[in-house]
Amino acid sequence: MASNTDNTALQLRSLIKASSELELSLVRVPMPIPLPDEVVVRVEASPINPSDQGLLFGAADMSTATPSGTPDQPVLTAQIPESRMKAMAGRVGQSLPVGNEGAGVVVTAGSSAEAQALRGRTVAIFGGAMYSQYRCIKASQCLLLPDEATAAEGASCFVNPLTALGMVETMRREGHTALVHTAAASNLGQMLNRVCIQDEIGLVNVVRTQQQADLLKGIGARHVCISGAPTFVHDLTEAIVATGATLAFDAIGGGTLAGQILSCMEAALTRSATEYSRYGSTIHKQVYVYGMLDASPTVLNRNFGFAWSVGGWLLWPFLQKIGPDGAAKLRERIVAELKTTFASQYAREVSLAEALHPDAIAVYGRRATGAKYLINPNKGLAA
Amino acid sequence: MASNTDNTALQLRSLIKASSELELSLVRVPMPIPLPDEVVVRVEASPINPSDQGLLFGAADMSTATPSGTPDQPVLTAQIPESRMKAMAGRVGQSLPVGNEGAGVVVTAGSSAEAQALRGRTVAIFGGAMYSQYRCIKASQCLLLPDEATAAEGASCFVNPLTALGMVETMRREGHTALVHTAAASNLGQMLNRVCIQDEIGLVNVVRTQQQADLLKGIGARHVCISGAPTFVHDLTEAIVATGATLAFDAIGGGTLAGQILSCMEAALTRSATEYSRYGSTIHKQVYVYGMLDASPTVLNRNFGFAWSVGGWLLWPFLQKIGPDGAAKLRERIVAELKTTFASQYAREVSLAEALHPDAIAVYGRRATGAKYLINPNKGLAA
Repeated sequence: MASNTDNTALQLRSLIKASSELELSLVRVPMPIPLPDEVVVRVEASPINPSDQGLLFGAADMSTATPSGTPDQPVLTAQIPESRMKAMAGRVGQSLPVGNEGAGVVVTAGSSAEAQALRGRTVAIFGGAMYSQYRCIKASQCLLLPDEATAAEGASCFVNPLTALGMVETMRREGHTALVHTAAASNLGQMLNRVCIQDEIGLVNVVRTQQQADLLKGIGARHVCISGAPTFVHDLTEAIVATGATLAFDAIGGGTLAGQILSCMEAALTRSATEYSRYGSTIHKQVYVYGMLDASPTVLNRNFGFAWSVGGWLLWPFLQKIGPDGAAKLRERIVAELKTTFASQYAREVSLAEALHPDAIAVYGRRATGAKYLINPNKGLAA
Repeated sequence: MASNTDNTALQLRSLIKASSELELSLVRVPMPIPLPDEVVVRVEASPINPSDQGLLFGAADMSTATPSGTPDQPVLTAQIPESRMKAMAGRVGQSLPVGNEGAGVVVTAGSSAEAQALRGRTVAIFGGAMYSQYRCIKASQCLLLPDEATAAEGASCFVNPLTALGMVETMRREGHTALVHTAAASNLGQMLNRVCIQDEIGLVNVVRTQQQADLLKGIGARHVCISGAPTFVHDLTEAIVATGATLAFDAIGGGTLAGQILSCMEAALTRSATEYSRYGSTIHKQVYVYGMLDASPTVLNRNFGFAWSVGGWLLWPFLQKIGPDGAAKLRERIVAELKTTFASQYAREVSLAEALHPDAIAVYGRRATGAKYLINPNKGLAA
């Protein structure tokens, strides 16, 4: 089962040096040996999510990326602006594996019954270090995929599907009835759109371009607003009136968009007000920032009263909040609707070495709609 | 008991006209006649709080204030910038009474036992229209002051004391153990400082000037940081480390201060971290914006992970949340500590007419430390 005769396997690593340099490389690590309750998965598909790119690239300016090394074991070096090194202090000098989630075939299993039951099966897994040929993991953490599902189909079982369902679950738990979502043409956004159609939840999709709007309308989105359009504020307010959304999930973070959403919510809520209130509507308006597509400051023009909140939202604290039973229910739905609601699209499948090519990074590093890459860590290698 | 022979009394009014003008004036209103469960209070003291100035001045540029009318019934007119008229739409054309809270003597009482029991007593009252010679109000809404307390001593029984106690109560209910407070040298800030000393709660006071810092240190404040000082970020971080504050109440709202507080909290929390986490500390950091001393945008440099929230906080929704029993407990403490913990200082006592003088507005309109005015609506008038 080993990928070569010296019983080691390739793993992608990200290292930030005190000299303000990022170094991406492939290293050889020993083939893992499973404990009784563990299995070893030959990873055949692992997406490059925005959340992976944060760890992969750190604060480096990838336009400065310079390749070296060999074709089989490439090295990529990029500069980190001095002003951003402070934020990197916690990881300087640590060679970090990358890759939150993936899928593949169980090639070795520990002695426990649970582990043995997974031998030869295709599973989805989560927990970091997925940009590796082989990943050792507890059998209990594997999500068994249906027989007919490929590793590529199961590669994005966790981050995006759980995030989409987590948003809807947060909406229900916090007493809202409809949602606004930004960067809505993403794989995640399309997924959320399908979930909301199925669950009959009002969803206002905010995108940047007409092309993205067309994409979403093509898959049944009812409310799509283009943030750059001259009619944006009007369009967004009308869509919020139509849906009653008082909750937004914002992947962008920087700039004025989060505040604009609150402002349009307030306009929608006070449209029918008969009495002047200097403190604005008493209905709570919430924006959760769950991404950092724009790292510039969040600018809030506070023209939306006092019943508002902007805060961070992350999937894993949310899953802790709902507990193992709550999370298990979400996972069941994901497996049941893997090829429909929770299907992902990728622009290209690349090997570990290809993922470190500057041309590839120039594409997937933009985090643009339709530019998501899938790594197959065993592509082109003897399996 | 009427103030003049035609059985009317003076009341201050604020009117915004469609012509983008603010008009402040004194009008004569009929002497109120109480229902069985009501009393009429001769208002002898009513503070000009920042929250009153919002209603009083609206969005007007008070540097354009022009007096007219007579000495007894002055009128003041000021211009409203065109760009800010949209936010005023809800109140255009309405002549609004002003003044959230006050105190005075019950001069007429309805027939109910509860109302009759208040005859001749000095009470504190809340509910708007306090910049009036006489205010009719339900007996059940009166806070009976101790015999030895003057109206001036009881004039600020509600807004500042309940806000200070509301901050501490919010801290406890949301699982925090210490507080940061901005604009901390205000009457409210001094009150909060006394509450925190008494309740042994860590409090980090953020002020603008050395003079304000000296004032707070003079009344026992342990942690005072000057926001303009070159060492501010360091000082604030150390004070947060010392107190463990993960909650802040911000009266300023605009600019970068709210974000700086979150950033210093994050630095304090991650100082002892042994492992790098790209998502930052998992400890929730909260800033509540409860004022608008700076109406410019809130600018958040999001270098504080994802476990954060910035939101509006208002006293009245908070009181609704804790219910009548919770609010009654807070009021009991306020009456018991009226001359100590909850004492207020005023720079000057003015009549209704004097409150409309441009020179007076130039002072109290700055909302500066030590520039709070107290209106006595019956000053110089026959009582």
